[in-house]
Amino acid sequence: MELKAGMTLPLRKTTEKLLMGPGPSNADQRVLRAMSEPMIGHLDPDFLGIMNETRELLKYVFQTENELTMAMPGTGSAGMEAAWANTVLPEMKVIICVHGVFGQRMTDVASRYGANVVVVGSPMGRPIDPADLQKAIKDNPDAKVVGIVHAETSTGVLQPLEEISKMVHEAGMFLLVDCVTSLGGVEVPVERLKFDMTYSGTQKCLNCPPGLAPLTVSPRMGEWISKREIPVKNWYLDLNMIMRYWGEDRFYHHTAPINMTYALNEALRIILEEGNEKRWERHWSNARLFWKVLEAMGLKPVVEEKYRLPSLTTYYTPEGVNEASVRKYLMDKYSIEIGGGLGELKGKIHRVGLMGVNSNPAKMALLTVALCDAFNAHGYKCDTGAALEVLSGK
Amino acid sequence: MELKAGMTLPLRKTTEKLLMGPGPSNADQRVLRAMSEPMIGHLDPDFLGIMNETRELLKYVFQTENELTMAMPGTGSAGMEAAWANTVLPEMKVIICVHGVFGQRMTDVASRYGANVVVVGSPMGRPIDPADLQKAIKDNPDAKVVGIVHAETSTGVLQPLEEISKMVHEAGMFLLVDCVTSLGGVEVPVERLKFDMTYSGTQKCLNCPPGLAPLTVSPRMGEWISKREIPVKNWYLDLNMIMRYWGEDRFYHHTAPINMTYALNEALRIILEEGNEKRWERHWSNARLFWKVLEAMGLKPVVEEKYRLPSLTTYYTPEGVNEASVRKYLMDKYSIEIGGGLGELKGKIHRVGLMGVNSNPAKMALLTVALCDAFNAHGYKCDTGAALEVLSGK
Repeated sequence: MELKAGMTLPLRKTTEKLLMGPGPSNADQRVLRAMSEPMIGHLDPDFLGIMNETRELLKYVFQTENELTMAMPGTGSAGMEAAWANTVLPEMKVIICVHGVFGQRMTDVASRYGANVVVVGSPMGRPIDPADLQKAIKDNPDAKVVGIVHAETSTGVLQPLEEISKMVHEAGMFLLVDCVTSLGGVEVPVERLKFDMTYSGTQKCLNCPPGLAPLTVSPRMGEWISKREIPVKNWYLDLNMIMRYWGEDRFYHHTAPINMTYALNEALRIILEEGNEKRWERHWSNARLFWKVLEAMGLKPVVEEKYRLPSLTTYYTPEGVNEASVRKYLMDKYSIEIGGGLGELKGKIHRVGLMGVNSNPAKMALLTVALCDAFNAHGYKCDTGAALEVLSGK
Repeated sequence: MELKAGMTLPLRKTTEKLLMGPGPSNADQRVLRAMSEPMIGHLDPDFLGIMNETRELLKYVFQTENELTMAMPGTGSAGMEAAWANTVLPEMKVIICVHGVFGQRMTDVASRYGANVVVVGSPMGRPIDPADLQKAIKDNPDAKVVGIVHAETSTGVLQPLEEISKMVHEAGMFLLVDCVTSLGGVEVPVERLKFDMTYSGTQKCLNCPPGLAPLTVSPRMGEWISKREIPVKNWYLDLNMIMRYWGEDRFYHHTAPINMTYALNEALRIILEEGNEKRWERHWSNARLFWKVLEAMGLKPVVEEKYRLPSLTTYYTPEGVNEASVRKYLMDKYSIEIGGGLGELKGKIHRVGLMGVNSNPAKMALLTVALCDAFNAHGYKCDTGAALEVLSGK
């Protein structure tokens, strides 16, 4: 269709859907309303007040006192980009733990900034073995940073970090952690486990549209970045400049995504009202119940229970069932979105998100009914009544 | 204030204000409403339809057939970053025209990607003299790209590009143009003047919140980027990957800023409904009238009339008047935001935006009343009645 002056286009197809895939999750209604509040200037004292408050809220959710806490002006991927862009110097040796697509992506991003990347891997669906990392650290004492994904969105693994943090800091290295799918759903112990560089996205457990990347930097790492002799090879995400915009001197850098900042502010208020601990507990108990439902349906989980992420559950789809067709059925009949596999898991698994507002008995009941129907329609028998009974805790 | 679980924070201070500075401008109410439409998945066919439509609308506003037309996932500054990140190879010689802060910024951004930058300058408030560029091209035949700002937001200069485009293409170089403050307000002749790389922002004449950067690439430049042997040194803004997300194969790269895309889609629909030509004419005629008002108030323009930008007017503030105090008066009493100077013009000028919905007789009348009052309160006499008479065309 050729567009011509004076034309009016038909309605946008933005019908409400239930987003229970790997992200985005549904935005909270309060967050959507916040986005449509009147725009004010990006250097207006009222907006600077909103930025300050948002930083305090981020510190609450990240559980940190890091002054260098802010929202980067891009999606979660911009958080990963910012983390590596500010950290890497040309030829710097870094160790990256790869246990899924997002760890793999880290190696690509870091390499572009000239890093010499050492990979510590584990099969998709399993966490990194600390012993493997210990060996890499021993073999590469000149490495400066260890990068790892806390919650692997491609597999549903929650990576334990206690032991890893200890060995990274004993070796005097920095710890860089991707928390895109964990922040707001499970504990992200920035301070307790001494994460040096931590980033997330807004569209997962924060229930906010995509467009900002929460990021927090330890004082030790911040000092190191501020003393870099080679400028950061990315003007837009240069923390040395951005920290002056979020800091006291309010130095103009870019125009903050104003209405997205309202949205994030509201999303974080909602978390504060519920409280971190209560929220994590809700995610855990709902996820554990949902795992039992899947068991009752005879579905095989991808991840061993003790490494399973409460905000994102993965299971193998039954032999002979076209997983993409099941997802299409869910969308067409129930307007429910769940995700398929990425990389080597493509066509083999489903990824189901119980994130924020969607970690909820009503949404889980609806999803259970819809999933049972979809599998039954694809020749895999599920007893809907039995599955729902599990959900009701019987 | 220490934040604790269970706390409810006071209302966000997002009172409606009239944003007549250098940007952001006010968002159209329809755009704000579009932002709060329900979120759908970033790979949902309905969302891909919205992306396609948005691309067609961007092509209409950019007046181009470039298939490589999209919205980059960041603010206008991300557009500048993307333009240079994808263009520059290490040690590549580039010519950058600097006639204000944003041209200066281009030199910083390009340098970070390893460009060897040749600067062609002109004093702030004056456009680049094509003869100076011609000389630089002759002296640097090995340069690959010429970068220039179409609408200098720091000065209010509209740079003529006919002659410049001709000489750049005769020399076989690429033309990279910053149209942040021109797109949607004045003609951006991408096709007619053969711009190879053009980017803009959403928060100026498009009346959309900041958060996306419209960008269009000529087929010649797109082919060159796709054949780069060295990967783009920026994963997040790598056009070779992003074009596959916006293109046929819908390759997953980042999660698009979904609700921001709704907003941009609506903002562009509004422009289509009015029509490019009518919209430019409205910006020109309102600006010319406003320039006469300023003349009646005895204020001296920064830019000679033939190089003046209709979407952003600049004038010197009278001797002895504290310009920042005048702006504060406007904000405190009338909730009107206008801008001060940047760089060497700081403290010396005002910048007034008449962008999109704010290029409008009602807004201009209110601003005229408020400005006269503010100057009178600061010891500089303005005859409000006379100024308003000019505005009414008498």
